[in-house]
Amino acid sequence: MMKGLGVGVWTFGMGSERYVSDGYKPYLTLEERIAKVSTLKGISGIEVTFPNDVNADTAHKFRALINQYGLSLCGMGVELVCDKEWQSGSFASPDPRRREKAISLTRAAMDMAAEFGVSNVSLWLGQDGFDYVFQDDYAAAWQRLVEGVREAANHRSDVTLGLEYKTSEPKMACYINSGGKALALAQATGKANVGITLDVGHAINARENPAEIAAVLLAEKRLFHIHLNDNYSWSDDDMPVGSVHFLQYVELLYWLKKLNYAGWLSLDLYPYRDDPIEACQTSIHFVSKMQNLVNQPNFDRLIEENRASGSRSVRAVYELLLGE
Amino acid sequence: MMKGLGVGVWTFGMGSERYVSDGYKPYLTLEERIAKVSTLKGISGIEVTFPNDVNADTAHKFRALINQYGLSLCGMGVELVCDKEWQSGSFASPDPRRREKAISLTRAAMDMAAEFGVSNVSLWLGQDGFDYVFQDDYAAAWQRLVEGVREAANHRSDVTLGLEYKTSEPKMACYINSGGKALALAQATGKANVGITLDVGHAINARENPAEIAAVLLAEKRLFHIHLNDNYSWSDDDMPVGSVHFLQYVELLYWLKKLNYAGWLSLDLYPYRDDPIEACQTSIHFVSKMQNLVNQPNFDRLIEENRASGSRSVRAVYELLLGE
Amino acid sequence: MMKGLGVGVWTFGMGSERYVSDGYKPYLTLEERIAKVSTLKGISGIEVTFPNDVNADTAHKFRALINQYGLSLCGMGVELVCDKEWQSGSFASPDPRRREKAISLTRAAMDMAAEFGVSNVSLWLGQDGFDYVFQDDYAAAWQRLVEGVREAANHRSDVTLGLEYKTSEPKMACYINSGGKALALAQATGKANVGITLDVGHAINARENPAEIAAVLLAEKRLFHIHLNDNYSWSDDDMPVGSVHFLQYVELLYWLKKLNYAGWLSLDLYPYRDDPIEACQTSIHFVSKMQNLVNQPNFDRLIEENRASGSRSVRAVYELLLGE
Amino acid sequence: MMKGLGVGVWTFGMGSERYVSDGYKPYLTLEERIAKVSTLKGISGIEVTFPNDVNADTAHKFRALINQYGLSLCGMGVELVCDKEWQSGSFASPDPRRREKAISLTRAAMDMAAEFGVSNVSLWLGQDGFDYVFQDDYAAAWQRLVEGVREAANHRSDVTLGLEYKTSEPKMACYINSGGKALALAQATGKANVGITLDVGHAINARENPAEIAAVLLAEKRLFHIHLNDNYSWSDDDMPVGSVHFLQYVELLYWLKKLNYAGWLSLDLYPYRDDPIEACQTSIHFVSKMQNLVNQPNFDRLIEENRASGSRSVRAVYELLLGE
Repeated sequence: MMKGLGVGVWTFGMGSERYVSDGYKPYLTLEERIAKVSTLKGISGIEVTFPNDVNADTAHKFRALINQYGLSLCGMGVELVCDKEWQSGSFASPDPRRREKAISLTRAAMDMAAEFGVSNVSLWLGQDGFDYVFQDDYAAAWQRLVEGVREAANHRSDVTLGLEYKTSEPKMACYINSGGKALALAQATGKANVGITLDVGHAINARENPAEIAAVLLAEKRLFHIHLNDNYSWSDDDMPVGSVHFLQYVELLYWLKKLNYAGWLSLDLYPYRDDPIEACQTSIHFVSKMQNLVNQPNFDRLIEENRASGSRSVRAVYELLLGE
Repeated sequence: MMKGLGVGVWTFGMGSERYVSDGYKPYLTLEERIAKVSTLKGISGIEVTFPNDVNADTAHKFRALINQYGLSLCGMGVELVCDKEWQSGSFASPDPRRREKAISLTRAAMDMAAEFGVSNVSLWLGQDGFDYVFQDDYAAAWQRLVEGVREAANHRSDVTLGLEYKTSEPKMACYINSGGKALALAQATGKANVGITLDVGHAINARENPAEIAAVLLAEKRLFHIHLNDNYSWSDDDMPVGSVHFLQYVELLYWLKKLNYAGWLSLDLYPYRDDPIEACQTSIHFVSKMQNLVNQPNFDRLIEENRASGSRSVRAVYELLLGE
Repeated sequence: MMKGLGVGVWTFGMGSERYVSDGYKPYLTLEERIAKVSTLKGISGIEVTFPNDVNADTAHKFRALINQYGLSLCGMGVELVCDKEWQSGSFASPDPRRREKAISLTRAAMDMAAEFGVSNVSLWLGQDGFDYVFQDDYAAAWQRLVEGVREAANHRSDVTLGLEYKTSEPKMACYINSGGKALALAQATGKANVGITLDVGHAINARENPAEIAAVLLAEKRLFHIHLNDNYSWSDDDMPVGSVHFLQYVELLYWLKKLNYAGWLSLDLYPYRDDPIEACQTSIHFVSKMQNLVNQPNFDRLIEENRASGSRSVRAVYELLLGE
Repeated sequence: MMKGLGVGVWTFGMGSERYVSDGYKPYLTLEERIAKVSTLKGISGIEVTFPNDVNADTAHKFRALINQYGLSLCGMGVELVCDKEWQSGSFASPDPRRREKAISLTRAAMDMAAEFGVSNVSLWLGQDGFDYVFQDDYAAAWQRLVEGVREAANHRSDVTLGLEYKTSEPKMACYINSGGKALALAQATGKANVGITLDVGHAINARENPAEIAAVLLAEKRLFHIHLNDNYSWSDDDMPVGSVHFLQYVELLYWLKKLNYAGWLSLDLYPYRDDPIEACQTSIHFVSKMQNLVNQPNFDRLIEENRASGSRSVRAVYELLLGE
């Protein structure tokens, strides 16, 4: 049973990018963002970043805020990317002080997550990678990743760490660049509480089929959290769910249900020039309609009957949805 | 008013590829293929290649065949790729004998098309390109393309030539590799009867939005024929329509209607391991449902009302299709 | 005869991006940037953006500055992207006031360019495109582009307009997205002074071979300016020249020489986490070595002898460079 | 210490592809291919496929042949793709008879490899994947892969199994689609003799940096065999080494040396329209020159001095190669 649908507070940011560095929209305070999220019908969770959005000093006030607006905390990431202090990397940095800070922040985030009843902390290591060839000792970097993540995971076993893989950005090439690589890294730590935060758009960028990689990660008991968004395949556009990929999303939702994914679905959107409320509503409508579809009593039978019969399975889904 | 939905006879081929060179299915004669096409509800046209499928010697018998099976000829391509004789190229070959043969075949195809009431002959120049750097004199190749296509087009003005662009294959890189390049070439010939055969999958491979390039080509009065198929973006998978891209196809069908595209839609599928009948039926079902959608009286208003309002236009389409 | 090697002043910016919006480096004033450029051996030109870097009010002071530092102005772009005021587009915007402002700024830039003896003004229309399907009327947008660019070009015939095409960014999909599309648009204006500013990285993103598209544009007398940089194929990384692509750059430099390209080569780099001086020096070293190679008396003969003989041409270049 | 440079006999095939299914070149017998390979200076190994090229019936004669021509057997693959019998998959097929045949063939290949002193058998599972969404039960397929490969590996521990990952082809999407996924699968088997056959072109298609994934696989003691070839990033072009990627190959050769890769480098080319002798010679020349470069006594120091200093490392390599 999935826990519900949430949304990341960064969805309500200014929309900064390389060319329009101050973004397309005014800055909103955390409370203003939470207030906006609370107006979204169908959303029960909110996701934040530690320590920027919530930390030891602000936890009390933050708890009061989300209670007031009737939201649960559905996910927590550790901020290890969005400041130039991380430009040599975090867990994989050759600089031991950076690695120590990354591990220490992760442990603190795990404690904070536990306090809020959040079972997973996401690690997106976007600065652990390289820009140019010959810029790093890759075998050493891999060892640092394995050991650092293991050390953080040892902190407590009741909170999982979800590696959020991505092919590139900010570094031109990131080390944890596919679902397979993230899974291999999790296995290499030897820790059961290290797994994956699956960002669907990142999976598409890595030429994966989201349903396929989700199923493999569930089979390996390492799928802990999911970010939903969409893109045109080439870059991480963070568009509303369903704005590009349709059947792939239906298939993902089907297998999440079928394989008993028990975590949250969290909207991770970045609507540069779009109203974030619109972007969320478009996503919520699509997810809701598609969940209805895959929850139909005969959907299961339909899929199993048509499996391995080529495009007939595609037509079967369309016929159920659109009529024969 | 579109002329209808057709299908290329190659869709019923053996499914040969690089690894399984004798394909996945038995060989069917042209008549067997036509017979199969005739069973497809919703298909009224058939597309062939000159001179392999039909030529001066076989035209009489072919006409009888399609009449017998109740089909119209909806398109004709010139075979300038699928034999090693073309490995140095056709219209752009440095060898003048290859260029002459290409031009002469094209002229003969135009005559044959006119005889059958087919208004467009497609030119897919898949061997006009290069494998390695430094393999060709690109400026000279471009001039040969412009002059050769112009010379062929001069043959008769009542038949159009549709350049079917594609990024690569068989050559690692093809010269006519995007809708823009094809349009520029057509303009450079100075002939009004040179334009484009838009293969939707090729457009996706070229990182184009099919609806956008179709609209530009219609604005320039150079969109003469359309091949429908789908793919996973990276290569020319020739899958059933809608098996990957959904909204993009809705948008394409909308603009074709709105801008009064008056040619055929022709299925160009290559179902390696799938039954071609299934692949066609899946495509026909999808196209039919989506044409119903865009032909709804309020669809137009809906699009215009929501234009330029970000993702609201995406949600509007989904709400109309799936309910609010 | 090429005019020399220049560099864009934005190469010395803060390195802002979506995640680190205040960049990785301190802000430098225009004079500080010019001073830095002047220390680069092998660089004789500097490229700026109108009206941000130079305009009617600052032209006098700017001229004094570049004279003092011994640099020429080698290129000028019009700023039509990097502020949220352009989010509905510039030349293709549905809002006539945006279009008027774009045209008016372009005309003023042409005048300023003429004053400085710069023959080309670059138009990078990164906001003319779309994020979502159904967001624009593509045929109308194309007509606005054709007419707007024509109107700007009519202002004076002694300055050319170079359309700098790019597949995406900031808009998810840009209208002028390939060399072919840019060429078709230039042709559609009917103006001889409309052509292309070729950004080599953008060509790679569009799956083009830079040498091939450069040769076609030269054959059509529409290649006016060139931006040099490199990337890993998928996004516009703006890395130093040669840091990824090697033979393709050799081939480009060969055909530019052979086909008598007479404009500037201008470095358009964006070294997020790298020292811009290093990034420029790496580029200058590579370009210089490769120009020496293609200028060798026997290079021409070598290429012509090995043309159309498959990979032998690749080996011939390597043998000349590295020994047999 | 690497074992030497080899070449796959399929490099001397007819060059069949989807459009020219009988290829561009005449058929050569195995002996004719071996004879051709033996003329290549710098090649000491030959790679074959079991049971097509060599099997129990032909092993005696084959051994005599390679002895006669002075070649060693450097690699062996199991044929599990190139016949329509495999269209439902091999190790991951839902059909238990296909899985049994795959395992049984693999075990026989391991015995044959041991007889010839070949330490690794490559498993390229190109039919284990899917064409359409909803075509397979992904979690079950993953379990079948893990268990089947484990069962095969149990046969004998003195021969390794190298999973040759590839994003797609022949299936539109393959299960073992990245170096990370292959590593995760190898780990999941719990067998030390399951690892990876790294095909450099496949790594590029998967958006990996070959040097990086090689280093990770070496750190995990699971890099058993290497196929060399090159491509334009988007598809598996199997072009000569260095014909597209330059610095990436230098970096790969550097880390293979530095991390003591002890297997073979085997050319896996598919020169459709090129002479295979030329394609091999171009590759051999490039590999040899680049190995000389990375073996220079000061190369190591140079890399370590310039590491983590941005593009300076790129320039350092070029300066060593081309002069300052």
